[in-house]
Amino acid sequence: MKQYSRIDPWRIIQDGFDSQDVEAFESLCSLGNGKMGHRANFEERYSGKSLPGNYFAGVFYPDKTRVGWWKNGYPKYFGKMINAVNWVGIDVFVDSQPLDLATCKVTDFRRTLDMRDATLSRTFTAELPSGLRVRVEAQRFISVADTRLGAIRYAVAPIDAAATITFVPYLDGDVENKDSNYGERFWEEVEAECGERCSVLQMRTKPVAFHAESGIDVTHVCSGMTVSLEGGNARTKPVDRRPGYVAESFDVDASANETVTLTKLVANVTSLDGLPEELVGRVKDALNAARAAGFEALHERHRSVWSAKWETSDVVIDGSPAAQQGVRFCIFQLHQTYTGEDDRLNIGPKGFTGEKYGGGTYWDTEAFCFPFYLSTAPQTVARNLLVYRYRQLPKAIANAEMLGYKDGAALYPMVTINGEECHNEWEITFEEIHRNGAIAYAIWNYVRYTGDDQYLASHGLESLMALARFWAQRATYSTTKQQYVILGVTGPNEYENNVNNNWYTNYIAAWTLRYALDTIDMVKDRFPDDYARVVDATAFDESGEPVLWRRVAGNMLFPVIEGTNIFLQQEGYLDKEQLTVSDIPAGERPINQHWSWDRILRSPFIKQADVLQGMYFFLNDFPVEVVRDNFNYYEPRTVHESSLSASIHSVIAAHIGDIDRAYELFQRSARLDLDDYNNEVHEGLHITSMAGTWLALVEGFAGKRIIDGLLSFRPSIPPDWTGYAFKLSFREHLLEITVGRAEVSVKNVHAEPLSILLYGAKETISANETVTRAYSEPGRSR
Amino acid sequence: MKQYSRIDPWRIIQDGFDSQDVEAFESLCSLGNGKMGHRANFEERYSGKSLPGNYFAGVFYPDKTRVGWWKNGYPKYFGKMINAVNWVGIDVFVDSQPLDLATCKVTDFRRTLDMRDATLSRTFTAELPSGLRVRVEAQRFISVADTRLGAIRYAVAPIDAAATITFVPYLDGDVENKDSNYGERFWEEVEAECGERCSVLQMRTKPVAFHAESGIDVTHVCSGMTVSLEGGNARTKPVDRRPGYVAESFDVDASANETVTLTKLVANVTSLDGLPEELVGRVKDALNAARAAGFEALHERHRSVWSAKWETSDVVIDGSPAAQQGVRFCIFQLHQTYTGEDDRLNIGPKGFTGEKYGGGTYWDTEAFCFPFYLSTAPQTVARNLLVYRYRQLPKAIANAEMLGYKDGAALYPMVTINGEECHNEWEITFEEIHRNGAIAYAIWNYVRYTGDDQYLASHGLESLMALARFWAQRATYSTTKQQYVILGVTGPNEYENNVNNNWYTNYIAAWTLRYALDTIDMVKDRFPDDYARVVDATAFDESGEPVLWRRVAGNMLFPVIEGTNIFLQQEGYLDKEQLTVSDIPAGERPINQHWSWDRILRSPFIKQADVLQGMYFFLNDFPVEVVRDNFNYYEPRTVHESSLSASIHSVIAAHIGDIDRAYELFQRSARLDLDDYNNEVHEGLHITSMAGTWLALVEGFAGKRIIDGLLSFRPSIPPDWTGYAFKLSFREHLLEITVGRAEVSVKNVHAEPLSILLYGAKETISANETVTRAYSEPGRSR
Repeated sequence: MKQYSRIDPWRIIQDGFDSQDVEAFESLCSLGNGKMGHRANFEERYSGKSLPGNYFAGVFYPDKTRVGWWKNGYPKYFGKMINAVNWVGIDVFVDSQPLDLATCKVTDFRRTLDMRDATLSRTFTAELPSGLRVRVEAQRFISVADTRLGAIRYAVAPIDAAATITFVPYLDGDVENKDSNYGERFWEEVEAECGERCSVLQMRTKPVAFHAESGIDVTHVCSGMTVSLEGGNARTKPVDRRPGYVAESFDVDASANETVTLTKLVANVTSLDGLPEELVGRVKDALNAARAAGFEALHERHRSVWSAKWETSDVVIDGSPAAQQGVRFCIFQLHQTYTGEDDRLNIGPKGFTGEKYGGGTYWDTEAFCFPFYLSTAPQTVARNLLVYRYRQLPKAIANAEMLGYKDGAALYPMVTINGEECHNEWEITFEEIHRNGAIAYAIWNYVRYTGDDQYLASHGLESLMALARFWAQRATYSTTKQQYVILGVTGPNEYENNVNNNWYTNYIAAWTLRYALDTIDMVKDRFPDDYARVVDATAFDESGEPVLWRRVAGNMLFPVIEGTNIFLQQEGYLDKEQLTVSDIPAGERPINQHWSWDRILRSPFIKQADVLQGMYFFLNDFPVEVVRDNFNYYEPRTVHESSLSASIHSVIAAHIGDIDRAYELFQRSARLDLDDYNNEVHEGLHITSMAGTWLALVEGFAGKRIIDGLLSFRPSIPPDWTGYAFKLSFREHLLEITVGRAEVSVKNVHAEPLSILLYGAKETISANETVTRAYSEPGRSR
Repeated sequence: MKQYSRIDPWRIIQDGFDSQDVEAFESLCSLGNGKMGHRANFEERYSGKSLPGNYFAGVFYPDKTRVGWWKNGYPKYFGKMINAVNWVGIDVFVDSQPLDLATCKVTDFRRTLDMRDATLSRTFTAELPSGLRVRVEAQRFISVADTRLGAIRYAVAPIDAAATITFVPYLDGDVENKDSNYGERFWEEVEAECGERCSVLQMRTKPVAFHAESGIDVTHVCSGMTVSLEGGNARTKPVDRRPGYVAESFDVDASANETVTLTKLVANVTSLDGLPEELVGRVKDALNAARAAGFEALHERHRSVWSAKWETSDVVIDGSPAAQQGVRFCIFQLHQTYTGEDDRLNIGPKGFTGEKYGGGTYWDTEAFCFPFYLSTAPQTVARNLLVYRYRQLPKAIANAEMLGYKDGAALYPMVTINGEECHNEWEITFEEIHRNGAIAYAIWNYVRYTGDDQYLASHGLESLMALARFWAQRATYSTTKQQYVILGVTGPNEYENNVNNNWYTNYIAAWTLRYALDTIDMVKDRFPDDYARVVDATAFDESGEPVLWRRVAGNMLFPVIEGTNIFLQQEGYLDKEQLTVSDIPAGERPINQHWSWDRILRSPFIKQADVLQGMYFFLNDFPVEVVRDNFNYYEPRTVHESSLSASIHSVIAAHIGDIDRAYELFQRSARLDLDDYNNEVHEGLHITSMAGTWLALVEGFAGKRIIDGLLSFRPSIPPDWTGYAFKLSFREHLLEITVGRAEVSVKNVHAEPLSILLYGAKETISANETVTRAYSEPGRSR
């Protein structure tokens, strides 16, 4: 654990240079625009420890699956988002000496990531080994206004005497991926042009057997740069070409204290943007437009889009600058990772901040991230997350077929980029099937929030039917128990594998079956044409399937601890040694770094919310005392060794009125990366868990729910806050919710009135009006 | 399924050349002498499909473990026996054209492996592309009399006209392993000498980080050859050297029909035989002795040792030539694989016949192979198998410590060469812990057979205490059930993973605890000095540990199917779909090639004996009707997709009097490789399952047991046999048991009388006498 950044409400700040911190700040200061992103690697060469990372959404390499012992059903290839072309690089030489902070004496170093406008700035003074000193100011951004573009301004001034500054801005596609098996390189050059202040480089991932077998094309990334210089006396120099690398080179004579500035505007497009042969043209178009606009105008457009994002999603916290920074950082990174403009894209656990987990989509999206985008971005953004899965439905059906299911049942991959499974651990890949439940849940969550029943008719019904078919086939009728059981699963608590009757899985399976049945009735009634189309397309057996689904859902086993309100995580859980987390010696945590896997599996310790995850999804279904009993039983057994754990527990703690515990858990989530709780921030950020922070605040402290179609709040406030405020959108209404220690107000920024529930009472807020009510201290009242 | 060899009582015969069969016969005609062995690769170059294989016991490469997702506790390296120096190779040219059966027209091809004396012969006529024809006769053996030596005689005669025959005998250490990750080479040259008709080559496995981390030395193999020529007019030619390869070369002018013969005598020693710097000297000594003796004398010594082996272990079957060949093949291969002379060596699943499974030791040794060697070889042979594990006890304790056990508990590796774990699948490596039970069982099996209580005092007690400590720690007290449970295991049926209360595991755990307690009492009473030594060395808590062990053993949960005699394979088994193997569509078997892993896990289908394995070990413990009920329940659910399955079921079927079923299962085991049931004989032979064939005959049909310290038989006979006979040794007595359809006789080839049980009646057989009794047809009587 280490607090890297200075506390600041809007900025991540690195003061002073320490080579130990370089990788951490590369992660913390990552930039992204939903389409591409990168770690905050220095522009100039750096020979110290660094994790280079430039990533493009949807661009992946299908690496060969290698396991000790093959199991039928493993994907032969697993796609992974890989480190791609380095387009930020600018080698800098001062009188022919390389500027490399690892070999310089660095003073006055300050790096700032401004979250208001996603702009990264860096200033420092470097004394080169020769004694020459230069002052550097660098600034860059990845445009969220034109998602093809990135822009860098890099200014150097010799301090003591005149010097020749050499700039070598380049595009380097011949890069390595840290997470490769044998230092293999995954990229090869397709085309390169090195023109006068405009260079283009097209790379593609190396073709492997996967492409021939699957018919899926190799992915391309085409990058171009245009550079300009200000100040000094510039001369173009010849530059070496090598495969996968284009560069330009300039010598600039600068007087003492004269600033010479290189501006590098970059365009990147990928094969998601067009056919491979079109990409060079697209890049040149983008570069021409960028050059015409110039750095300042591009920056202004970028800033203005960011400003609009904060207008609808900011959270203000009074009384805790650390929490303020933490929450803003989470919201900021979520916006950088996903913008919802392209329904082929999704959210990887590390976004564009590192290569771990391979950039694939997990159930994190539906279970954790979805409510954030649903409430803070235009409705199409959340809808596109649903459409992403809908587009992949045929592959989910094919995946299920490969595993032995039939008749159009779908099993979504545990991890995916384009719909193909990217994971290869049998206990997860084949058995962590509850992901199918989260995908159904997100559809329901969307529809209840937006009221967009039309989506069910156009897309949702088909998805839900395929998911229901899966669950109906996956359940087994136990003749001994005379109930349906679900055998051999891994629940959200991945510290149990291949268990029987995981309550969470059984619950969401039965729920999905019922929701599919309800949706069939609704669509049949209100959208008969869509219903007929789907019945036809899916060969739906209208007489047989619903009967089975109803029987399975209605006769599912839900294990409980007898004589209590507690749902049993899975059968056999009570045979374990009955310990709580306080029994684990401090030196043995986290257990996943200290204990062998079988010991973890045998232990009663829980990685992340499991029964409680189900209660979180369906909080309206359970009386608060039932939730409390389950929380009080399971939370003390939970080691929270998933970044997704603390936030869900925080929501539930707030729900049952334990605000102190909720706040403690909230803090672990809000500053997980900023304070590097797990000593791994150098690998990248925990993007999907950042959404949990927002959930803990909005659904936890503020108690946001949907009850009978109405938005409902039941705000509480953590002890050391004086107040907090947040914004969210609900069916065209922008709401500003302000919670103080004495009163709570909700402003309806919309021309139509809105009825909501506040502490259970219905309040109708007129257009552009605010309702204020006394704070009712639910933390103590429950 | 394909029958490759002609049926013959003593020989494996390939008549005619078919390039499709080359790899299968390479496996079937493998040679070995317990110390080294090889596949029957041709001496001359062969450009067709072939699996080169030369192996040395105890010689391994520690490859880096590579898994998709690391779990704590995995070994960083896994040792594997790798393809080593090709010492059989002789390139042959006829008038400069290479002799390569893939490019010749081959006639009169016959290859014969004579199991009487482990000699491989091959004759053929080859027409070279030029039209030249030659007649070839090759013969070779790997000496079991001097285990350093191999000898080859290779004779060529031009048929139609005079020709120059070029021989290039070589030692090639620069070989590949098929089962490598990236076509890596694992060997490097240490030293090479190319003298006049005597060359030496020392190779070692490449040093990797493992060696530095473990302090374990790199393994070396040093080989030498001495060649001589007969016939024709020979001239030595210069020959190219390259790293890892030494060769000699001779041109021999032969008249038409004149036979020219090359004799190549080879010595191989490894770092198990001496320090690396001593090996060249040792090879030269061996070569000098071999040259002095010559091919014929070496062959005669080899033949005489084999003759003695058959004297004490042959099985004769009348009425089924196929079964006769099958059983002899099993016995032959077991003798080739393990001779019990070196307690650092053990038995890999494929012996020296292929590289699959990496040559490591599994529980196969104790559970399947042990009784064969115990009954057919000198007592020291079986004892050395026990000592092998005893030597590795410190590593088993270290392994257990790494997994969280303490106080000297031992967990033996699932797969090992030198005591280190070589397997990396968590559900096997960490959870298939029943292997610890088989290791205790073998000690008991040895002692009850030999009466060698002294072994318990000198070695066994220490092993049993470490094993008992493991089980006492591994069991969990369930407060719900008020019994000890064993959670998270994989039983012998590997089609279930991470289950709770596998009956077999719980049974053998409780049994081990009780056996350890009994052994403590016995050693304390009869060998007090040994007892004191062990108590001291193991820091045994004489007051605490036995109490716990007794409590755990006495209060262990043994799951049952209520209201029946049937022990439940594991908790939850009855919740599965209640199907039997006949419900599986024929096209979907074997299920391990057709179903995804999770589907196999969820199914009720059993890979190999599990509950029945436990009943097999302890048949005396269960009334025959209990065994029958369990067999009738489990066998129909068993797919026998392990080569170890059919034989154990055959023993039990015979035990319950179902001789027809026993015979059906026996046949699958006896000719598993000869008839290639699993279409994989090209990869190598199923050596450890061959012991099962012997068990099925001797313990199954003949009903061999130890009852109250007496050897007992209750012979039955399969329907289409007219009689069978086998030999075994029991406490100095060599017995010849002959079973006919009318009578059964047992001859005691020893100067002391022996009392045995025959059909339950005590019979005392005088020195060198035979007892004959009427056949009592147990197959029909039970």
